[in-house]
Parts: sequence; structure tokens; C-alpha cells
Amino acid sequence: MNPNAPAVLTLQCADQPGIVAAVANMIAETGGNIANADQHTDRESSVFLQRIEVDGSIDWNAFEAALARLVERFDMQWALHRPGSRARIVIACSGDLYCAADLLNRVELGELDVDVVAIVSDKNAAAALAARHGVEFILVDGGLAGTDRAVQEAAFAETLTGLEPDLVVLARYMRILPESITTAWTGRMINIHHSFLPAFPGAKPYHRAHQRGVKLIGATAHYVTAELDAGPIIAQGVATVSHRDEVDDLVRKGRDVERKTLADAVRLHLEHRVLVWDNRTCVFA
Amino acid sequence: MNPNAPAVLTLQCADQPGIVAAVANMIAETGGNIANADQHTDRESSVFLQRIEVDGSIDWNAFEAALARLVERFDMQWALHRPGSRARIVIACSGDLYCAADLLNRVELGELDVDVVAIVSDKNAAAALAARHGVEFILVDGGLAGTDRAVQEAAFAETLTGLEPDLVVLARYMRILPESITTAWTGRMINIHHSFLPAFPGAKPYHRAHQRGVKLIGATAHYVTAELDAGPIIAQGVATVSHRDEVDDLVRKGRDVERKTLADAVRLHLEHRVLVWDNRTCVFA
Amino acid sequence: MNPNAPAVLTLQCADQPGIVAAVANMIAETGGNIANADQHTDRESSVFLQRIEVDGSIDWNAFEAALARLVERFDMQWALHRPGSRARIVIACSGDLYCAADLLNRVELGELDVDVVAIVSDKNAAAALAARHGVEFILVDGGLAGTDRAVQEAAFAETLTGLEPDLVVLARYMRILPESITTAWTGRMINIHHSFLPAFPGAKPYHRAHQRGVKLIGATAHYVTAELDAGPIIAQGVATVSHRDEVDDLVRKGRDVERKTLADAVRLHLEHRVLVWDNRTCVFA
Amino acid sequence: MNPNAPAVLTLQCADQPGIVAAVANMIAETGGNIANADQHTDRESSVFLQRIEVDGSIDWNAFEAALARLVERFDMQWALHRPGSRARIVIACSGDLYCAADLLNRVELGELDVDVVAIVSDKNAAAALAARHGVEFILVDGGLAGTDRAVQEAAFAETLTGLEPDLVVLARYMRILPESITTAWTGRMINIHHSFLPAFPGAKPYHRAHQRGVKLIGATAHYVTAELDAGPIIAQGVATVSHRDEVDDLVRKGRDVERKTLADAVRLHLEHRVLVWDNRTCVFA
Repeated sequence: MNPNAPAVLTLQCADQPGIVAAVANMIAETGGNIANADQHTDRESSVFLQRIEVDGSIDWNAFEAALARLVERFDMQWALHRPGSRARIVIACSGDLYCAADLLNRVELGELDVDVVAIVSDKNAAAALAARHGVEFILVDGGLAGTDRAVQEAAFAETLTGLEPDLVVLARYMRILPESITTAWTGRMINIHHSFLPAFPGAKPYHRAHQRGVKLIGATAHYVTAELDAGPIIAQGVATVSHRDEVDDLVRKGRDVERKTLADAVRLHLEHRVLVWDNRTCVFA
Repeated sequence: MNPNAPAVLTLQCADQPGIVAAVANMIAETGGNIANADQHTDRESSVFLQRIEVDGSIDWNAFEAALARLVERFDMQWALHRPGSRARIVIACSGDLYCAADLLNRVELGELDVDVVAIVSDKNAAAALAARHGVEFILVDGGLAGTDRAVQEAAFAETLTGLEPDLVVLARYMRILPESITTAWTGRMINIHHSFLPAFPGAKPYHRAHQRGVKLIGATAHYVTAELDAGPIIAQGVATVSHRDEVDDLVRKGRDVERKTLADAVRLHLEHRVLVWDNRTCVFA
Repeated sequence: MNPNAPAVLTLQCADQPGIVAAVANMIAETGGNIANADQHTDRESSVFLQRIEVDGSIDWNAFEAALARLVERFDMQWALHRPGSRARIVIACSGDLYCAADLLNRVELGELDVDVVAIVSDKNAAAALAARHGVEFILVDGGLAGTDRAVQEAAFAETLTGLEPDLVVLARYMRILPESITTAWTGRMINIHHSFLPAFPGAKPYHRAHQRGVKLIGATAHYVTAELDAGPIIAQGVATVSHRDEVDDLVRKGRDVERKTLADAVRLHLEHRVLVWDNRTCVFA
Repeated sequence: MNPNAPAVLTLQCADQPGIVAAVANMIAETGGNIANADQHTDRESSVFLQRIEVDGSIDWNAFEAALARLVERFDMQWALHRPGSRARIVIACSGDLYCAADLLNRVELGELDVDVVAIVSDKNAAAALAARHGVEFILVDGGLAGTDRAVQEAAFAETLTGLEPDLVVLARYMRILPESITTAWTGRMINIHHSFLPAFPGAKPYHRAHQRGVKLIGATAHYVTAELDAGPIIAQGVATVSHRDEVDDLVRKGRDVERKTLADAVRLHLEHRVLVWDNRTCVFA
């Protein structure tokens, strides 16, 4: 972590006159400087969203007190991220390792500035990958029988809770999650789906894309919600395909789109660039 | 039309050994030269598809006789397009003119080498556009009442039949066609749909895309079949969007994707580059 | 023009604390509301750039007085665009008409909200196009001889000056302009170049791209400056090509990229979304 | 290696009538079946290029004898790749490891079916990466002094020769190679350059791209030739950038384009899909 990195303040509230001035004044008056600011007003829903990078010689006690008054005045949702400890993520995967391996690679190369707390999986496939990167591997397969879904789900839920990550990344974790888990991790769990949602939700999207004869395939990174593959979309990627591409080729091309799209979404989230409202995202890229 | 343009031969049949050699020999023996050849074997369905551009001093009587023997031997579907008269197309549209205007523009500029026989519409909006380009405009609105769908459909069907085009281009013609029409024009009627099919088939895809918060929008040009927006896909295009884009922006960005995608599909079809099997296309681009 | 459209204020100055608050306060205090705001601080050059859409019941006299104080305090460059008369553009072209035709098409369809004052050309090719759209056509070919470059340039300069457009669009105008013209129209003259600048500046870029065997071609829309094809880049577009594409195919594919890229740049400019500093652009898209 | 994989035959010669028929007959007569065929005739240079995947019960002695007659008759350059041993590659890199790491990751995941014989580097940075993947690491830094360029180059040349790879991949190897090396490995050495060649050849392309204010950045994978960054282009990739992107952001976005473009080029080469003529490539993708 860069100790001189700016703090990030995100805000959202019903749109109303004077917000920008009030926020800017609050920052100026407590010794801060606006290093970067992005804002968006959604006209349809009259929602105001803002992301500000603040640096300078801030009196944080004064800042937080002033912010509290602002939040009350405008009835804001907000988050303040002061530079400090590195974010902690858990990667969950099953048998296909390319997304997990890509994320670990990026962490290793310094492209993603996070601590990978553990790789959690319902299969043993990722054990060697985790070992290679010195990351704890936790198998959560629901016991020897491996047939009791509820047991596996409870173990998965408990494992995540125990690890206390800031973010759970479903990097091709191929189980449908119960609402108890999706609710517990609202806005803190990202999934990669291997199609342009809303096309081809659910199973085997590449097979169905091939069957349909599409000329473009895609991948979608989204926050997980109770409804399968229906959560707020963070990022989408695309690749061209042709009649020459069999299902295996779609899978191969799709892998590159998936890992890139997932890594982008994780980075955007960790930089506090994604605000959610109305099952949609505002991505201040 | 360039009189020295090559002839185009397209073939498809069950895959079997010796096809390529037999076709190549047939062409060589009748004085032809293979200027270009593309072929594809779909492994799943074991279908062989080929497109050949033939030039040289061909004895066309001998060629056609030899081709007939080949077709019988391999049980082929085939088409032979000798350079000659320019293709005739009909453009159908409703109130939105940007696709029709783009096609006419391309014809005017010599980018699409076709005769536009007429613009047919259920609304009067395109009359001035047609006049500007010296193209006949035919209003098919089902009579003054304009409420009897069957009457309108019959008039539309009859108009198309009477014009005898090689291709009908639905350039934002906003009516669902009855099966009698889709069947009559199988493989000779192209539609542009303003989404990545199979996402958002049917009405108002941009509104639904906005509601869903997608980060990519698209357009799909496809042959029309009885099932709405489910015919073989010829071309798809894509544009990135963000939270800043309201529905109007999606419409604006989508227009550029739609006209480009439709124009590509029309060109590919007219150059005999699109072969259809199994509700999918082989596009020898 | 939509009379309820917001006014657009653009600002740039040396970065310093308190700008955002001061501007926001000034707007709030004169009855305005910030409908949209974008800002950027370039760290390298320490330049602050901002674009604000302002609506509400503004007291424009008070606003302009307050703005003047702000401009003095922060030593700002600024521009204020109040909704009112439609922008006036001149399109200049030579023998290739596809960019000019596309722009006129967009104006006709209501996609570009401008008045095309005239088409100015050194060749007669665009006369029919201009007539079709009811736009004045002005031939500036330097006299019958057509050989005296200085005469032609003087006539071109004088014509532009006389037409008093807000923007001159070089839509494939194939003459190198003298510095007297490029200086007179700094920041108000956009050119489309048919390559990814800085690759292939100057003549025949598609031929050179084909010769080099590139796999991607592009187009660049930029403000015109004294140095050929070296002005601030507003927009760039791209298309994939392969060994199958001969020069003619590059030209065909390039046309679609060129017209789209040029139209984007013109729209961005007219919406006051492009700020220039240091021979670079800040595009608040 | 899949033992049932087809053999790949590549051919190129001056264009002349009857080639396709002769090749197809030769294959049919020796028991082969054409599983896939691609061909291209470059009109400008009158060169014919073909890539054929052959399977079936081939009599390889007869095949090779017949092929020899064909090669003589048409004066062909050719290569025949029968399925067998896995290709051997050497990866060369310097301090930046992201391309090398990506290639190793792909090998590990089974996406690239090759043996990585060694990682060769002029710096020690990749030693741990090599160890993690169980690949030999060879430091070729020209001795302790590290200042004698000729010594380092000789050692590098000797190392490559000794390893006998089928392909050398310069995965961000940041030294300019002497002609003795580029000549020795003509057509068997691929480099990744971090710009759209021919824009920004040589050093620090991202800095120069940022300075120039481009809106698109790219990467180019090409065969190495004596002239720096001027060899036949195999693949190019692209990413959009904006004024918000500082040099560091260009580097970050560029990394993703570079590794993808390089991996594509390596795969295309290893599948014998790239034919070179006239400093250009024919890529049968």
C-alpha cells in the first residue's frame, strides 16, 4: 500500500441542489484537496452518486464530524476508505482454474494489490495452484459422501465468515449459492459468468452459444444476488467467433475474456470505483 | 457489375472423402481457375460447405454438365452465380429511417453494388428519403383504417412478390411477419435486431438493456424465420456503454452498430458468402 | 435546439486547492444547479480541467459577474455555452464523398443538431450531394487553370472566413493547408486521417498499411494544427484486417471507421466535451 | 499431443492453374482425407499459399514421394508437420515478467501444448518464476561486469543454439539482437512489441503514446528480423485509453493486450497457421 495514496469517499443520495458545493466545501474546510472527483446523476431515478479522491493535510476528526453532518443533511449512503491495510480477498473455484490462476498471477506480479487469504473450493483441483503461490487451500466438499448440498453450503458459508475477507471472488465456482450466502455477502461477492448476460444465464453457455450460431461471445462480472446471474453488472467483455469455432474454441476464446473481465471487476471494486443502486452499477473507471 | 468478376459456386453436402479433389478437377477440366476457395467441415453435423470463386476461359456448358454429375454423385445443395445483372433489393422500413438511409447512401456511393427496386413501408416517413434517392416508395399501411393486420400483411406480401427482388432487407420494419411471408422468403430476407441476440429479443431492447445495466450493447443481422428473432445469425456488432448512457444514448450508439451490422450482412449475402445449415451460418468473409 | 438544454461551462487552469468548491458555490449562489460535472487533473502538467452542465433558474447577469471574479482569481481559460442558436458548420471535401455524405445523413436524421452552412470543395464531385440535401455548394478550385496553389488557398481561406462557421470539418479534404489557415481556425477545424496516427501520417496510409501487413487499421479525428496530422487527437477507431484484405478491402473497411470516428469527434466538439491542453485533449464523453 | 491429430501441410508457390486439384488428388490417392483446408492467393504478388489438415489412413511413404513430385512440378516451398512430439519453446525475458508468467500459466493449464525448455534472461528477475513452474532458468548476463554487449550476445546465441527449441519467444526481452541471431532464427523467433507497429517502434512506446495523446494503444507480435520492430506481423491487439490514463495506466492496460497478443501469436505459429511471404504473414486462423 502506498501510504500517500488518497483516501476515497463515495456518496449516494437523492439528487438535490447544493450537494457538490457542500461536499467540496466540507473537504476544503477540513484541510483536504480533491485530487479526483467523479459524479453521476441518474435522471430516471433522481439519484446522485459521487466518488472523490481526497489528499492533503486533512484533520480526520474534523473531516469525519463534518461528513456526519453532511450525511444527515442529505440522507446519504456513504463509505470512506482511508489508505491503510491491504484488502483481503478469498478466491473460490471448482475444477476450472484459469480465472483463479490469473488472479494469483496478477497478485504475484503486483498488478492486484491484495492479500489472498485463501482459495476455497469444492474440489481438490486447485490445491497445487494454491501451494505454488503459498496461499492456503481449503477444501469444502461437504464431507466424504459429498452428496449433501446443505452440508456443503453450510461449510462454505462458515469458511467464508471465518476468513473475514473484504471480498469473495467466485472465480468459476460452479455451485448455485443459497440466499443465506448471497445476502450475507451483498456487494462483497463478485462472480464471473461466461456469457453476455442476460443471454445464456445458467449452465453451459458456450454450448448454447455455439448451437445458436452467435458471432460474438462474452463474459460478465457481476455482484452476486439471490437470483442466479441477475446481479448488478460490473464489467463485460467480448470476443468475435465464427463458424470455424467449435465449442472447444469458444471455451478457449472465452477463457481470455473471462479472466480479463473478472480481473477488471475485482480491481474496480477494490479501488472503490463501483457504486450500486437499483440493481445497476455506476463504474467510475 | 464488373464483367470480369469471377463466378461464385457454393456447395454443401454430407462430408465424405474426395469432394475437394472432385470439385477442383471439374473446374480445371472445364477451363476454369480457382481464384479463391473457402471450405468448412462442421464436425458435429458432418456437413461440408464450400465457396469457390472461378475465373478463366470456362466452357460453361461443359461446366454445368460436369457440375450436375458432381451434384448427383455427392448429393449436394449448390448455387452458381455467374457475373451478370446487378442484384435487386427491396428495403422495408417503418418510422426510423437510419438503416434505410445508410443503405441508400452506400448504394449512392458505390459501396453496395445493387439496384434498390423500392422502399416499402407501413408508414409515410420514408417517402422523402426515397424521393431524394430517386427510388420508388410504396406505402403498404393496410388502408385508411390501418387497423386490419391481415389486410396489411397480405398487401405487404403481394408487394414483395410483385417486385421480384433477390433480397428483402428489413431495415427497422417494425412489424412481426406471418409465417406465410417468412417461409416465402427463406434465406432471402435479412432483418436487423437491435440487441445481441439471444439477449433481449422482441420489443424495446434498449430500454431493457438500460434497465439491466449492461456494459455492452449490440445488434444482430439475421435471416428471418418463422420464430421471432431466432433465425440464422449473419453478423453481430457491439458498442460499449456505461452508467452515463441513458436510453437515448443507447439508442444513439446502437444506431451506428445497427447500420454497420446490417450493411455488412447485406454485402456478405450479396457476395454469396453466407451458407446456412442447421439454423446457423457459415460466413466466408 | 432544446431551449431547456443546460448551459455548458468549461474551465481550465493551473491546479490549486479550492477550485471545485469555489465553482460549485458560484453556481449555487446564482441560482444554478449542477446537472452534470466532469473534471480532470493532469498530474504531470498540473492542469485542472472541468466541464459542467448547469440548469436551474439562473440569474445570468449575476452568474457572469461571479464567473468573471472566479476566472480572475484562478487565472482560468473558460467558455460558457448557453443554449440558443444551433451551431453552424462547414464541410470541406474533395473527390471522396463518404464522410461528407455521412455527416449530411446524420444532420438529416436529426443525429447531429447543426446547420450545415455549405460544402466547400476543390473538386466538383460533391455538387450533386449538396443539392440533394439542399446545402450550398462552393467550388474553390483556384480558377480554370487550377494549378496555382496559393490562389486556391487564398480562395479557400476567404470562403471559410466569409461563411463564419463555428466549426470547419475536413471530411476528406485532400489538400495540405498553409499555416495561415490552420492558425486562423485553431481548435475550430477537425480533420479525419485514415490511419492510427502516429502510424502512417501523410499520403496513402492504406497502401502503406497493406504493404506493412498490419492486422488492424484505424482512423484518427484530430484538430488541425500547422504540423501535418500532428494536432490534438479527439477520437480514434479501429477495424481488424487480414491477409485476405487487399488495398481495396482496407479502403472499404476504413471508410466505416473513418465516418464513425469523424462523426463522433464532431459531436463531442459541438457538445463542448473536448478541452485541449499541451497538444492533447481531455474528452469528457 | 493427440495421436489422432491431423497432419498439417503448408505450401506456397507462384500462383498457377491446377494447384488445388493436384494437391487434392495427391492426398486422395495416398489415402488421405482433407479435414480442413485454407488457401489464399495474393493477387499483387501472384503468390499461392495453402494450409491443409490431413487425416485418414495415409500411406506416408507414398504421400511423401507424391508430395516431392508436386513440389518439384510447382516449385513449392513446403512443410509437413506430422503429429508426434510436443513443440519445444524457449522463453526469453528481462525484468518485466508478465508475458513470461502468462505463457507459463497457459502451459500449466494445458492451453498451450508445448514443452518450455528454459527461461533465458539477462536479469535474475525470472528465477523464482521459473522455479515455481519447474522450468530451467538460465542467466545470460554477459559476466559479472555485465557491460560487454558482444559477450552477452554471444552467450545468448550459444544458449539458444544449445537448447534446440522449435521456437524462441521474446517475452519482453529488452535487448536489441545482432543480425547474426535474427538471421539464425528467421521465422522461429517471435517478439512482442508494446505498440501498434509501425507507430512507436523502439523504446518507451507507452510514454510516447501518452505524450501524443492517443485514444487507442496496442501491441504487436511479430517475427524478428534484422531491422528493429519491422518483421512480419502475426497478431495485433488494442485497448482504448483516455485522458484519465497516465503512463502507469497505459502500462497496466497494455500488459493485458501484450500477453494476449503474444499468446495468440505463439499458438498460431505452433499450429502452423502462419505463412510468411514478402515480409507479410498469411494467418489461417
